[in-house]
Amino acid sequence: MKIGFIGLGNMGSPMALNLLKAGNELIVFDVVQKNIDSLLEQSNHKATAASNVADLAQSRLDLIITMLPAAQHVRSVYLGVSGILENVNAGTLLVDSSTIDPQTAREVSALALSKGNNMLDAPVSGGTGGAQAGTLTFMVGGDEAVFNTNKPFFQQMGKNIFYCGGSGNGQVAKVSNNMLLGISMIATAEAMALGVELGMDPKILANIINTSSGRCWSSDTYNPYPGVLENVPASRGYSGGFGTDLMLKDLGLASEAAKTVKQPVMLGGLATQIYQTFSNLGNGHLDFSAVIQMFKK
Amino acid sequence: MKIGFIGLGNMGSPMALNLLKAGNELIVFDVVQKNIDSLLEQSNHKATAASNVADLAQSRLDLIITMLPAAQHVRSVYLGVSGILENVNAGTLLVDSSTIDPQTAREVSALALSKGNNMLDAPVSGGTGGAQAGTLTFMVGGDEAVFNTNKPFFQQMGKNIFYCGGSGNGQVAKVSNNMLLGISMIATAEAMALGVELGMDPKILANIINTSSGRCWSSDTYNPYPGVLENVPASRGYSGGFGTDLMLKDLGLASEAAKTVKQPVMLGGLATQIYQTFSNLGNGHLDFSAVIQMFKK
Amino acid sequence: MKIGFIGLGNMGSPMALNLLKAGNELIVFDVVQKNIDSLLEQSNHKATAASNVADLAQSRLDLIITMLPAAQHVRSVYLGVSGILENVNAGTLLVDSSTIDPQTAREVSALALSKGNNMLDAPVSGGTGGAQAGTLTFMVGGDEAVFNTNKPFFQQMGKNIFYCGGSGNGQVAKVSNNMLLGISMIATAEAMALGVELGMDPKILANIINTSSGRCWSSDTYNPYPGVLENVPASRGYSGGFGTDLMLKDLGLASEAAKTVKQPVMLGGLATQIYQTFSNLGNGHLDFSAVIQMFKK
Amino acid sequence: MKIGFIGLGNMGSPMALNLLKAGNELIVFDVVQKNIDSLLEQSNHKATAASNVADLAQSRLDLIITMLPAAQHVRSVYLGVSGILENVNAGTLLVDSSTIDPQTAREVSALALSKGNNMLDAPVSGGTGGAQAGTLTFMVGGDEAVFNTNKPFFQQMGKNIFYCGGSGNGQVAKVSNNMLLGISMIATAEAMALGVELGMDPKILANIINTSSGRCWSSDTYNPYPGVLENVPASRGYSGGFGTDLMLKDLGLASEAAKTVKQPVMLGGLATQIYQTFSNLGNGHLDFSAVIQMFKK
Repeated sequence: MKIGFIGLGNMGSPMALNLLKAGNELIVFDVVQKNIDSLLEQSNHKATAASNVADLAQSRLDLIITMLPAAQHVRSVYLGVSGILENVNAGTLLVDSSTIDPQTAREVSALALSKGNNMLDAPVSGGTGGAQAGTLTFMVGGDEAVFNTNKPFFQQMGKNIFYCGGSGNGQVAKVSNNMLLGISMIATAEAMALGVELGMDPKILANIINTSSGRCWSSDTYNPYPGVLENVPASRGYSGGFGTDLMLKDLGLASEAAKTVKQPVMLGGLATQIYQTFSNLGNGHLDFSAVIQMFKK
Repeated sequence: MKIGFIGLGNMGSPMALNLLKAGNELIVFDVVQKNIDSLLEQSNHKATAASNVADLAQSRLDLIITMLPAAQHVRSVYLGVSGILENVNAGTLLVDSSTIDPQTAREVSALALSKGNNMLDAPVSGGTGGAQAGTLTFMVGGDEAVFNTNKPFFQQMGKNIFYCGGSGNGQVAKVSNNMLLGISMIATAEAMALGVELGMDPKILANIINTSSGRCWSSDTYNPYPGVLENVPASRGYSGGFGTDLMLKDLGLASEAAKTVKQPVMLGGLATQIYQTFSNLGNGHLDFSAVIQMFKK
Repeated sequence: MKIGFIGLGNMGSPMALNLLKAGNELIVFDVVQKNIDSLLEQSNHKATAASNVADLAQSRLDLIITMLPAAQHVRSVYLGVSGILENVNAGTLLVDSSTIDPQTAREVSALALSKGNNMLDAPVSGGTGGAQAGTLTFMVGGDEAVFNTNKPFFQQMGKNIFYCGGSGNGQVAKVSNNMLLGISMIATAEAMALGVELGMDPKILANIINTSSGRCWSSDTYNPYPGVLENVPASRGYSGGFGTDLMLKDLGLASEAAKTVKQPVMLGGLATQIYQTFSNLGNGHLDFSAVIQMFKK
Repeated sequence: MKIGFIGLGNMGSPMALNLLKAGNELIVFDVVQKNIDSLLEQSNHKATAASNVADLAQSRLDLIITMLPAAQHVRSVYLGVSGILENVNAGTLLVDSSTIDPQTAREVSALALSKGNNMLDAPVSGGTGGAQAGTLTFMVGGDEAVFNTNKPFFQQMGKNIFYCGGSGNGQVAKVSNNMLLGISMIATAEAMALGVELGMDPKILANIINTSSGRCWSSDTYNPYPGVLENVPASRGYSGGFGTDLMLKDLGLASEAAKTVKQPVMLGGLATQIYQTFSNLGNGHLDFSAVIQMFKK
């Protein structure tokens, strides 16, 4: 396939390289020139660079994929006067892998369709490690037939590819999952800190929880208590992993989305405030499991 | 073994029957006469009844097990003037399977030891279904050698038998696990309600969560959204299962235990208030997963 | 003065009539024609109507005041192609009395200034009663000299006129005060419900709180417990007053504003969720003090 | 009157001195000998010391007043084998000014009455400053006629003397007021921190709040933002005043009391967790208004 890739940051760059490896032809763009230079070099100049979004969009592509930081960038890149929708050929499939609010995803998708372009929202989880290894999880919203036809495209970058339903539902799945994750991590932190403070060995406590009804990904795969699991951020000073400020961004999206449908999120709301407080204490760059430091004495 | 069993309620009664089935000799007592009568009948009068706690305690038993509603009953049955400690032979092993606060468990255990009786705290999870099937989980605190010797005793009533460390740690494990469970259930309820309200199919959302980082027992084994899983309370009107008021009791124990060690439990505290509000709306008898009704519109 | 008034709803209409009463010349507009008709009739046709925002803005006015539901309307009326800024004479003072987020207020104000128009943000409190009686509180942000010159203008509609500092600070004051109010009301509700449930007479409890350190406007002026104060919503079935959904709107603005500056608002966040839950139970139209029904048994 | 005074700590000692100043005869006791010595010296040996509680109780007194740290001490001093109830003459009035849970107050009072002694629960507010100046607030529960007869006794130590209703209601009033206070202080902290972070001057913001609907004792009398008010802890590094750990104790009593009547206290519960977190960061000795440091950046 002939693919355009816009957004060559920590996530986008390894995703683009995996698409190249799979044999696609690639035209890339990023607002930061050195991100473009770096990608071209890493690809041994198999990829070519467009000089701006409009040029890229006019390049008679099968598919354009975008990987951008936030909704405002998605609006600008798709809806701006020099943006994708003003310049792309009808028929080119559009895929946005940014993590943004479902409402914006739906708006942009509807405008794309009105111009004759199918669009899928396809946010990912798995972090930079998953992006490099090609093992990302994709949560995809949009037309089901379009999804089915293009599933192999996603499999070139990821392992678990979920169809979530109509337009925007990829974002809904991500925001719902990550809100649950953000709460579960604090819940695990509270439970582990409480048990240890009351006299238990953290490994024994984790073992019991992991075979009981408190079991969750935050306890059995990513335990926040130092020393319980090897090879998780908690056992290397909370470096690497999924940063507290990234979790805050996702919880912010969840709260906003909840507000649009008047859905109360009591624990989701409080969890957001706890991560914000923890970030303001200077910990925004630490893995989000470091939030246990709010509870451990 | 010759065993005394005190407390023949919904949980104690099937546990006692399993001990009989395993070939033990049983002397039983309950403050409610019809609970005794019912047990004797169900056992085809293989069990015998004591006329009070003191008589039972004086019966030269290998082991006495108690299954009582709350700490005040444990104090009374063990420490009262006609209680176990005043009447039991030195050497009889004492096992309390009530769910109570760790501090009381430790106090009673220390007093027992000072009279020459080893004591294990051994709260269970698994509900009345697990009690009948003999598949309970036991979380046991106390002397490790005593635990190892008596593990077969617990296996006559349960499947997973965990040694949790010194005296009181069985209660610590239970309270920590159940606080995490109580929070996770509300978190799952919020995430499922949010995703569905934003337009997703509940089964698809649950499938994605269950293979992602939001995965937890409350989502993959006991999902609170009606119709997602078969054979869970959510799919039969929230009948059966683990009642909201029982979850409230356990969360109350967690909060009290946290207070004794000055441990903040932010989500644990808020979860308690949410279940209390839900119970006051007339839902205390419903399975605790019904708390999703606070969030579903 | 020759004044343009845009937004003739429940608040704007009585404010406009008070400006007329004070002897000003008035040109009015609203997107709803019957709001215009009603205002003209109530004014005995002393006010005149413009046919749209652009016409009103071109009418060589001393001052234009707007009273609109939300930020999106403010953006449209001021920044739209047929909006105020594109059409107004340089030198006309602009006053926005809508309650919106500080950031939007600052953006619009800066754009106005770049076109040669001073602008004040001047949200109010006091409700429709205060609007009719001319006793509103105005919280005003913008240039101090401009504020001082125009204080008499505000006094024609209000009683307490506060200068809050630079542009946007009127909105900051309102959002901060109303977040505190929203929390205090729930706090008063919890304290009153707790005291009564524990056996106290609500009037005696309120009297003690009102002369002690728990004293607040929600307890001494607007007590949520029925029968404690006369002439408050709690003593007439929570009708009239300041609706739950309006409080929700203001708490939403507070949470958004807090997010922009990474400010945690733990109680503010939880209060928002409580009002949302209460509103979803069908109570959004009741006075916000009715939230005590979440706590009273 | 001939009065017995038990509990000569920071509060009890100045209260006892005020009773002496008013012309009463005083017999005192404390478990700490140097507290007794200090009181005798400060009284120029007009007070006399009892050698233990039993001796004091047997001294044919008109009234015994106790000022003790917590419910466990009240139980011990009143109900112990060498305690007041076992030794006091029928007819001596008993007054407990300790701050404890209403349930214990009611239990002890009922036992006192069964021995022929009226008892009043009379917790205070006003701190050590109010104790020295004789300006304490007394919240009194018990028989109304007994209260009326003995109002002058309380006026020798305090200024505002409130009758709260039957036995235990003094404690109910205190716990309800202080829970509201604890929440209001955090609410004020959040609102002040938010407004300042968004660009307002703290004094201007406080002035507006104090004449608006956000007004409360925490904003107009005890503002937590440094520099807003003179002569409050916030303007002297949060020294003096009402310690965070004392507020935690009162919020703990409120939560326990709420639990006994199944009363949800959502904000009360979260406020408790916030003060606990703040205390664990090493701030338990600071005035409780220092909790604003959790929110100020």
